[in-house]
This record gives sequence, structure tokens and C-alpha cells, in this order.
Amino acid sequence: MNALNIYNPVKIHFGCGLISESGKIAKKYSDSALIITGKSSMQKTGTLDRLTKNLKDAGVNPTIYDKITPNPTIDEIDEAAVIAKKKGVGLIIGLGGGSPLDSAKAVAVAAKGNIPVWNYLKTSAEEALPVITIVSTSGTGSEVNRYSVMSNPETGEKPGFGYVCMYPKEAVIDPEIMLSMPPYVTATTGFDVFVHVLEAFTGKAKNAFSSAYCMQTFYLLKDNLIKAYNEPDNIEARGNMALASALAGLAIDISGVGIIHAMEHPVSGNYPNVAHGVGLAALTIESMKYNIAACKRDFMLIAHHLGIKRAGKSDDEYAASLIEKIQEILEALNLNTGLKDLGVEKDKLAKIAGEAFTTMGFAVQNNPETIDEKEVLRLLEASY
Amino acid sequence: MNALNIYNPVKIHFGCGLISESGKIAKKYSDSALIITGKSSMQKTGTLDRLTKNLKDAGVNPTIYDKITPNPTIDEIDEAAVIAKKKGVGLIIGLGGGSPLDSAKAVAVAAKGNIPVWNYLKTSAEEALPVITIVSTSGTGSEVNRYSVMSNPETGEKPGFGYVCMYPKEAVIDPEIMLSMPPYVTATTGFDVFVHVLEAFTGKAKNAFSSAYCMQTFYLLKDNLIKAYNEPDNIEARGNMALASALAGLAIDISGVGIIHAMEHPVSGNYPNVAHGVGLAALTIESMKYNIAACKRDFMLIAHHLGIKRAGKSDDEYAASLIEKIQEILEALNLNTGLKDLGVEKDKLAKIAGEAFTTMGFAVQNNPETIDEKEVLRLLEASY
Repeated sequence: MNALNIYNPVKIHFGCGLISESGKIAKKYSDSALIITGKSSMQKTGTLDRLTKNLKDAGVNPTIYDKITPNPTIDEIDEAAVIAKKKGVGLIIGLGGGSPLDSAKAVAVAAKGNIPVWNYLKTSAEEALPVITIVSTSGTGSEVNRYSVMSNPETGEKPGFGYVCMYPKEAVIDPEIMLSMPPYVTATTGFDVFVHVLEAFTGKAKNAFSSAYCMQTFYLLKDNLIKAYNEPDNIEARGNMALASALAGLAIDISGVGIIHAMEHPVSGNYPNVAHGVGLAALTIESMKYNIAACKRDFMLIAHHLGIKRAGKSDDEYAASLIEKIQEILEALNLNTGLKDLGVEKDKLAKIAGEAFTTMGFAVQNNPETIDEKEVLRLLEASY
Repeated sequence: MNALNIYNPVKIHFGCGLISESGKIAKKYSDSALIITGKSSMQKTGTLDRLTKNLKDAGVNPTIYDKITPNPTIDEIDEAAVIAKKKGVGLIIGLGGGSPLDSAKAVAVAAKGNIPVWNYLKTSAEEALPVITIVSTSGTGSEVNRYSVMSNPETGEKPGFGYVCMYPKEAVIDPEIMLSMPPYVTATTGFDVFVHVLEAFTGKAKNAFSSAYCMQTFYLLKDNLIKAYNEPDNIEARGNMALASALAGLAIDISGVGIIHAMEHPVSGNYPNVAHGVGLAALTIESMKYNIAACKRDFMLIAHHLGIKRAGKSDDEYAASLIEKIQEILEALNLNTGLKDLGVEKDKLAKIAGEAFTTMGFAVQNNPETIDEKEVLRLLEASY
């Protein structure tokens, strides 16, 4: 039996209205905080104002860095880290979707060190400022794990990194904030949850702990993924998707991702306007076809958890029915797309294939079926 | 949707031969450790010697307290805490089954304070010495959670308590140690795992996180509980039961237990020779019959996870088939017993019923079906 090391020290708070506890939680760590967020949605919905007022009421002085883009660049992170140092803040608060949350963790590392954040891909970080995550989407899982993904705009590279010191201290998951998520964001982030558990549940590093999170996530996705998309005001569906996002985030914290994520990172790294979730959507079906022989039993189990009836199907047919089901889900979410539709140029596919290996090698290694660069290029072409 | 707070900071290490890492792990916390263990099995198997040698080799000076009984008393805990203080140790290591592990956590609290350990039932503890657990059975879950159960020999009371400071820092789960578990211990501790997930999965405090752990545990129990009993040298079955124990321990850390545990604690509190797991075995069937109406859907899901075929059964029949299945499992484990067989006196049942409420009130409250003292007495009589 494979040896395992399981550890996740994040204090997870889930509940409607919990954002109003943020000040109290922040005060445990510092009197001053840098809020890392995006350019518009948290402002438009009033969530950023609520948070800053709540922090001030609790005696925490907030500074705001609100220039995080959907695919955060190392320049943004380094700029925010300089502000954190200059202000001498004792806490970083990530507010928003995966991009600001990932960035908050990277800023927390960079603000403790004296090197550009990009260097932490090669130099391990031993300390970081404490981080609190307040998540506004249901997809990334970043709220509960140590990972951070950042893009190098000069090269198009978009690697992920994650050290023990990067675990958020506390995660605030308030489904009420998610009610304002636009349908496209609900779809793309929700599909990201599915790909997290698909890849964690079938990957070479799968184990009993990550499988526990994955199975529960499949159950939650079955009843809530499309419902949250079609009924944006359904607080129960929103809450269940928020739980699914967190559980899937714990699963990938343990068992990582696979070839779909490995290919998607260079796609949105080279095309920063492509949302991570829709990039995944374009790549999932062909990747599943490639992997099906290596994880037939797992596909059958997922099919079962997603409520697909067996009804006399052979093992092969039942495993294959999962791919059909995912195709249906993509259509229901209006995410049935190819790389071409996303603006990816065909002559960039070879560069993307190479970067899957150079920047996401651990995910390639974890893929259930062994895969080389030639096969990855073929998958990218088939997903075009 | 109910608000949730999820937190478990234990570093879990699972793998064959991992006990040889204990010294290295201990050294991170202190140069001196008090080992809390029982009177015989860790000595007989040589595990205690291996551990002390390993600690010394790593530069950690071990002191041994090896007087923990199967139902540890407050006197044992207070005595060990005095030794910890006198020696000035910086670390407590629990070695063995649930009893030494629970005791290690209680000793860690008592060694930091100036009051008898019993007082911590009413006074919350804010600090404790760091604890490492090295588990030799697969049942308690104590290796990964904050709980400690202790008996007051004067009153027969056997309450549980658990504060945040009591989480073990690290848990070493080495299936090789478990190969020496005698069949009766395999059966009783293994059945304890089942009751943990039964009660966490059906209790009022159930949620998506604990359900994830429970479902995975049911899967592991299905294939490994009876196998580990019948094939004591089957390292894969031992390993899977060790994982099941840990997952179930995480589940009850989040969602607690129910009426079966609430009744069993005063049984083995008043009759210290009764092993916890066999006490549970005597009480499970009648408790399930009492609860079935309140958690029919959950029973159906558990039946499904345990591999019971639906085969045209109505919902009621399918839920009831779980109780039959558990009866079969009890027979296969030679645990099909009543309270009378365990030496419990009939005229003690009323005292036991009362203590279920006074010492395990939180578990009574968590039971899926509301229950009063009269009903508990009736369950005890029916389980006699």
C-alpha cells in the first residue's frame, strides 16, 4: 500500500451571512490587512465595501489592491507584495474567485521574502503572511488549499505552486455572496469543480482520503451544478456548489490534477482572456476518451455517483456513458466549445503542448494514462 | 443551510514501517517525551522497545508510563501528568489503541494545568503539551481527532471531552503494527469503526464533510472488516481498516456520535472489563431499530455502500436490510452478544440510562430520533 501524508490546517467557516464575521476573524491575526481582489465584481456587488467596513469596525485597518486580472500575472503579485511590505500589513485577505485567492497566497509569500514571486517556483518558501480567503465563486477550491497559479505574460507560462506555509489560516464560505455570480461564471467555475474531482479521483496519486472528498462532490454536483446555473437565486444549490468547491479543493490538495489541467494552464496562460473553466471544458471530452481504458472502474463509479443508470450496460458501455453525460452537462451549461472558438491559434498548439510538460509536469505525471508530448498535441488538435 | 466549522490540523502519516520515523517526528517538538501506553501488548510485540530505541537514536529522551487500563481512569491520567511535569517533558506520545491515545491527550492537558483532569469536563483547556499518536488498533479514530474518554472509578461515569488544543500534532499509522492485533481486538475495534460512521452519518449534526468520510469508510468496511478478522496477516485488509479507522475518526470529530455511544460509555464505565467495541455490539441492533424511521434514507444509502442489493425491495425493506446485514456482521465477528453476557447486572440499567444523559448528553442530542431516559432504559432492557 502506498504511503500517505495528509494535512490540511485550514479553518473552514461555511454559512449564509458569514462575511460579517470577517473582521472578527481577521483581528485574530493582525490590526492591518491587505485585501487582494479583482477590478469590478466585488465592487459592483458591494461586497468589498461590506468587507472593508466590517474590518474597520473590528479594528483592522484595510488597504485594497484591486488590480487582479482573471489570469493573474507575476507583475500584479509582485506589485501587491511591495504594497504589503510598504504598509507593513500583518495579514493578506483574498476576496473573490480563484484569481484573487490564488494571488493572495502568492502575495503572502512574496511579502515575506526579497525575491520576485516567479523565483518561488524553484526556491521553496518557508514562511508567508497569514492569509484569509473569502470566496465569491464555486469552483477553484483555492479557498481551502495551498495552491497558487500565476502567469508570466512574457512567456505565456502559467504554472502552479504551493508550499505548506501557503495554506490559508481561515476560509470564509458565504453562499449569499455567490448569488450575484453571473451565469457564465457559475458554469465555468462549476465545471472546474467537476474536473478537479475527475482528475483527483482517477489520478495515480488517488487515495482513500481524496476519494472520500471526490465521491461526496460527485453527489453534490449531480443535483446542484446545472440547478445553480439555471436558478441563480437558489441559495441551496449555491450552498451545495460552495461545499462541492471546497471538498474538491481538499481533494486536489491531496491528490493533484491531471492532463486536462496540465493542458489548460498553458491555454489560458497564452490567452489570458480565456477563463480557466471554459478552457477545461474544451479539453475534457478528448482527455476522457484518452484516459478511459486506464480508469474504466473509476469512470463506472463516477457514472454511478452522477446517477447514470446501469440498465444492462456492459462495463465498457457504462464507463463510456460517463463521457456522454459530461457532454450533456457541457451543453446544459453552454460550455460545449472547442479551442478554436476560444480564439486559440492553431500554430500555438505545439507551444502549449510543450508547456504542459515544462510548467505542469506533476499533473502530467499524475494522469492515469501515460502520455507524451506528441499525444498531448494530438489531444489539443482533437479539442480544437 | 446549517452553518459549519471544519478544522482538523493533524498531520497524518500512513504507511508500512512508518513507526521507524517516530523519532524524527518527535524531535521536531522536544528532546524529551513521555510515552503513554498499556500494560502488555506493546511490550510483548516489541513495539515499545522499537519506539524507545528509535526515540533515543533521534536524540529524544523517553520516559514510559505503561499503566493505562482498557478503560483509563482519571487516577491513571493524573498520575502520568505528575510524571510529565516532574520530568519536564515537552511531548506526550500515545502508543497503542484508543485507551492510551485518549489518555495521552488528557495527560497533555493535565500536565499543562494545576487541576485534576476530571475538572476539565467543566473548565475548558486552552493549552496542552504537543501529542503524537502511534496507533496499534483500527477502531478508535482517536489517532486523528481531539477526543479523550476517561472513567471515574468512584462513580462509574465515563464521559468524553475534547478541546482544540488536544488535537494530536501528528499521527503515525503503520499497518505493520496492526498485524499482531488479536482477533477479538480486531473485531471489537473494527466494529467501533462501523458505529462511528453509522452515528456520524445519521446524526443531526451530519454534513457534507463528515458524510464524505463516512461514505468512504463504508466502502472500506465492506471489503475489509471481516477479512481483517479472518485473515489477520492480510496487510492490505489491515491497511484498509487503518484508513477506515482514521476516516471515521475524522467523521466523528466533525459530527459526533449518537445513542449507541451514549449508552455504551456508562456500560464500560461501570464495568471496566467490558471492551468498548463489544459494548457497542450489544447495543447496536436495538438502537438501529429505534432510529430507522428517522433516518430511512441514510440507512438505504449505507445499505447501498455496504453492497446490499436492492433487488426489488421497497424503501422500508431496503432500509431494514441494513439491520439484518449488521446482525450478520456481528455473527461473523463473534460479537453477537447481549449486555447480560457481558456481566452487566440488570439492576444497574437504570443508573446506566441516567448516565447516558449526564455524561454523554451531546451524543443523546445528536441522535437522529429524539429519545428520553425512559426510552433509553427500554433500549438497554431490549439489548440485555
